[in-house]
Amino acid sequence: MDYPLVIGQMLASGLSAAPDQRITYADQVEMTYAEFGQRVARLGSALASLGLGPGAVVAVMDYDSHRYLESFFAIPMLGATLHTVNVRLSPEQVLYTINHAEDDAILVHADFLPLLLPLLPRMRPVRLILLSDKPVPLPEGFAGEYEELLAEGDAAFPFPEFPETTRATLFYTTGTTGDPKGVTYTHRQLVLHSMGVIACLAPVPGRGGIKLDDVYMPLTPLFHVHGWGFPLIATMLGMRQVYPGRYEPVKLLRLIAEHGVTFSHCVPTILGMLLAAPESEAVNLTGWKVIIGGSALPEGLARQAVARGIDVHTGYGMSETCPILTIADMKATQGATGDTTAIRIATGKAAPLVQIRVVDPEMRDVPHDGVATGEVVARAPWLTHGYLRNEAGTAALWRGGWLHTGDVGNMGADGTLRITDRLKDVIKSGGEWISSLELESIVSAVPGVVEVAAVGVPDEQWGERPVVLVVAKTEVEAAAHAAVAAAIAAGRLSKWAAPERVMTVEAIPKTSVGKIDKKAIRASLAKAG
Amino acid sequence: MDYPLVIGQMLASGLSAAPDQRITYADQVEMTYAEFGQRVARLGSALASLGLGPGAVVAVMDYDSHRYLESFFAIPMLGATLHTVNVRLSPEQVLYTINHAEDDAILVHADFLPLLLPLLPRMRPVRLILLSDKPVPLPEGFAGEYEELLAEGDAAFPFPEFPETTRATLFYTTGTTGDPKGVTYTHRQLVLHSMGVIACLAPVPGRGGIKLDDVYMPLTPLFHVHGWGFPLIATMLGMRQVYPGRYEPVKLLRLIAEHGVTFSHCVPTILGMLLAAPESEAVNLTGWKVIIGGSALPEGLARQAVARGIDVHTGYGMSETCPILTIADMKATQGATGDTTAIRIATGKAAPLVQIRVVDPEMRDVPHDGVATGEVVARAPWLTHGYLRNEAGTAALWRGGWLHTGDVGNMGADGTLRITDRLKDVIKSGGEWISSLELESIVSAVPGVVEVAAVGVPDEQWGERPVVLVVAKTEVEAAAHAAVAAAIAAGRLSKWAAPERVMTVEAIPKTSVGKIDKKAIRASLAKAG
Repeated sequence: MDYPLVIGQMLASGLSAAPDQRITYADQVEMTYAEFGQRVARLGSALASLGLGPGAVVAVMDYDSHRYLESFFAIPMLGATLHTVNVRLSPEQVLYTINHAEDDAILVHADFLPLLLPLLPRMRPVRLILLSDKPVPLPEGFAGEYEELLAEGDAAFPFPEFPETTRATLFYTTGTTGDPKGVTYTHRQLVLHSMGVIACLAPVPGRGGIKLDDVYMPLTPLFHVHGWGFPLIATMLGMRQVYPGRYEPVKLLRLIAEHGVTFSHCVPTILGMLLAAPESEAVNLTGWKVIIGGSALPEGLARQAVARGIDVHTGYGMSETCPILTIADMKATQGATGDTTAIRIATGKAAPLVQIRVVDPEMRDVPHDGVATGEVVARAPWLTHGYLRNEAGTAALWRGGWLHTGDVGNMGADGTLRITDRLKDVIKSGGEWISSLELESIVSAVPGVVEVAAVGVPDEQWGERPVVLVVAKTEVEAAAHAAVAAAIAAGRLSKWAAPERVMTVEAIPKTSVGKIDKKAIRASLAKAG
Repeated sequence: MDYPLVIGQMLASGLSAAPDQRITYADQVEMTYAEFGQRVARLGSALASLGLGPGAVVAVMDYDSHRYLESFFAIPMLGATLHTVNVRLSPEQVLYTINHAEDDAILVHADFLPLLLPLLPRMRPVRLILLSDKPVPLPEGFAGEYEELLAEGDAAFPFPEFPETTRATLFYTTGTTGDPKGVTYTHRQLVLHSMGVIACLAPVPGRGGIKLDDVYMPLTPLFHVHGWGFPLIATMLGMRQVYPGRYEPVKLLRLIAEHGVTFSHCVPTILGMLLAAPESEAVNLTGWKVIIGGSALPEGLARQAVARGIDVHTGYGMSETCPILTIADMKATQGATGDTTAIRIATGKAAPLVQIRVVDPEMRDVPHDGVATGEVVARAPWLTHGYLRNEAGTAALWRGGWLHTGDVGNMGADGTLRITDRLKDVIKSGGEWISSLELESIVSAVPGVVEVAAVGVPDEQWGERPVVLVVAKTEVEAAAHAAVAAAIAAGRLSKWAAPERVMTVEAIPKTSVGKIDKKAIRASLAKAG
């Protein structure tokens, strides 16, 4: 008689809580939750009539839209798996993920047809559904157009029942080596992640965290770990939602202003891009709450954001953790009068039901003194069971019964986690482990610095030596060296952290999800010699 | 690899979130969460050393204390079952529940020894542990005194691991007929209830609902459905907690004032008692948030509370539902300027992950028009699986796969549930169903009325006829008749609702948990003829 934890219940809660609440897609569509619920049922019915039911894998290639949100519910509610395709991968990688996922159908936006169509001959047959924002001819071989299929669908479609351990989602994470790895989540895990994140963010006093009167707009693509789970959370709570479509700074800023967006989440580069856009000056961003994840929030960017009145905090997690494990201490920053930057950029404390440890290679806890570093490992009810058809990767991920994040950090006596680096990005010089993130954070605060990346380059004598790349508005190299020297003098960094070189560059290489691509940087530096 | 939902994780979250936060027991004990965590481990260790492990049943008979909170965690964390004994039951009922539960041990406060000791010869042998607030001699046959056992315990006791479906708690609910019925909950259910209630209350904007900076004090005995689950919630979130011990109005008011209590929950009679206490005038209750449950919140009491600045809302549920199913719409009352009484006393909307239906005897949904009534049935991940060793009762509770609440209500088009009566308390007169609650609510608003109860008494001609009992400060009978007549004239009640009699009485009979005992009233009226 145990009542299953399934995504359909989250939708039902939202529909019951706020039938008249609105969901907006950029400038194109606005609907109520009641209408949204009917569209989800119609989509489920349309997919079922194409033979897509329990066990099927249905891929989506779209911008952040109401359609994507409808897919978040309708596909898993059929007992099928939603495969969120990372459209920023290379065509070969997209092909790899679609074949590895064994997709039965693909919902594809017209803009991505040039990417997808040439790949079709190298896939097994799939059902194709066209998504578009304006009339486009239906390509040959397509089963139909999304809105037309919905119009024919059943607004009272009865979704099936199934166990909470049914797979709901699948997406691919690209490591630094090898093929993309498939990460899957069950209904149970997605419901529990949502409940855990709510228990972490909603009880924050004042205007902090998330509240029922927030206006939500994602700034993390929905293919990236389900938009960090927030679309599910916002829907369950019946929050006002705005989906921005393709990310264009001017449009994003306009949507924030027009709809009074109060809650978003993004990687640091997106926030930096918005703040750097000339149009941002005219937009009042006071009270906009932003969770930063994907990579560390640089101190300089945090200060810039706070100066604009943005209530910014770091979140921490990864594709394999659904993603949220910790959030910076929002209770401490609400209503605080002093400088809260250090709190906002700290990785924070474990969310409810999350267990975090920092361990040495033998899995022994390092001292909780805020200094000793080790690998961060985790347990929580929403961590992926492993990589799809990849036993070796799964075993490495879960060795010793804890999920290994591949991140290096320390833990304070009060349980506050601070990530100091990726295990693979730590710069090992002269027998010391130098945090590339710490170096970046210090240089990011130098006036004129727009972006920064620190990597280790091989050195015969010292193992590795730090090299810092900067994108800057002015000449900053000398100031960057001076800032690091001051940090060394203050005991914040070891003397080995003094960069071998600070190099001003036009742009810093990024991965498909907007993170700094240190592997590419190291490769290009090695090539440059 | 699915990570189990167990109570120990909730404790771990609280200890990690707020190690320095305080827990207070009346005027006697104050400790940090870190100390609390160690005491839970010591208690677990002490119980284990008495042979109480997985599968054992350990009963507690105590006031609302830090000890009780320690038992909430330590006993289930052993894999044992916590039996929360209702100390307000008759001695024979207490004996029945202890024997039916098959208790292996009882933690008993010295004040309840006169109740328990005479019953011991009629029980199978149990381990006995003495709880007390001042030194008392250990009675013969006792295994030890609580604090002494804890002092010998292991503060780093390793609790065992077990499945989330392990039974965690057991208590007894007294219906109107037959023996008390045993209601049980698993670890999974208690965790999910906590997460669901947080998702319902925490996202309320402003100061509403629950927030991390709230100061929590229960005013529902911890033996009553785990203090409605709030002690678990408060602990997981790391909230400041105050346990009041024995309920004495003057002490309760003093604790509220001294500790700045901001969040409580109780039955209407307790709130009425506090507001009626002469000492209450001197206490600033502005901003005190109170969830009312157990029985309907009378309109008059709601108005009184709001006039004192209390942020009062109805919650709805029952022993079998862990207990929370719905909460009045707190978002609507936060910052509202008009009269919010109707919102505050409505049963409200289903909490996240709760499904509520109002059905006719054939389990068909009645129209959602705010008028049509039927029985309220529910599904949620935290409803009891059934009554312990009572198959017939379980089958009736869960007939048709939905939990039958035994309450009559209607549902509005927006999903707002309004309970109109208990199925068994509906007054059936002249072919009409008259809500005894509606009658009570109207009479409660008559100036001078302190308490009110409406019941149906048998009538040869009309089936039943309404009789209203009032406790009043002044002569109110004529005004009560007039108030009901006005409500009939306004179409709010059917003409059959005009009371046959309004009777002023000294006191209204209550059940052991403080609810109006309509069965007893009907019996006494029948006897009086």
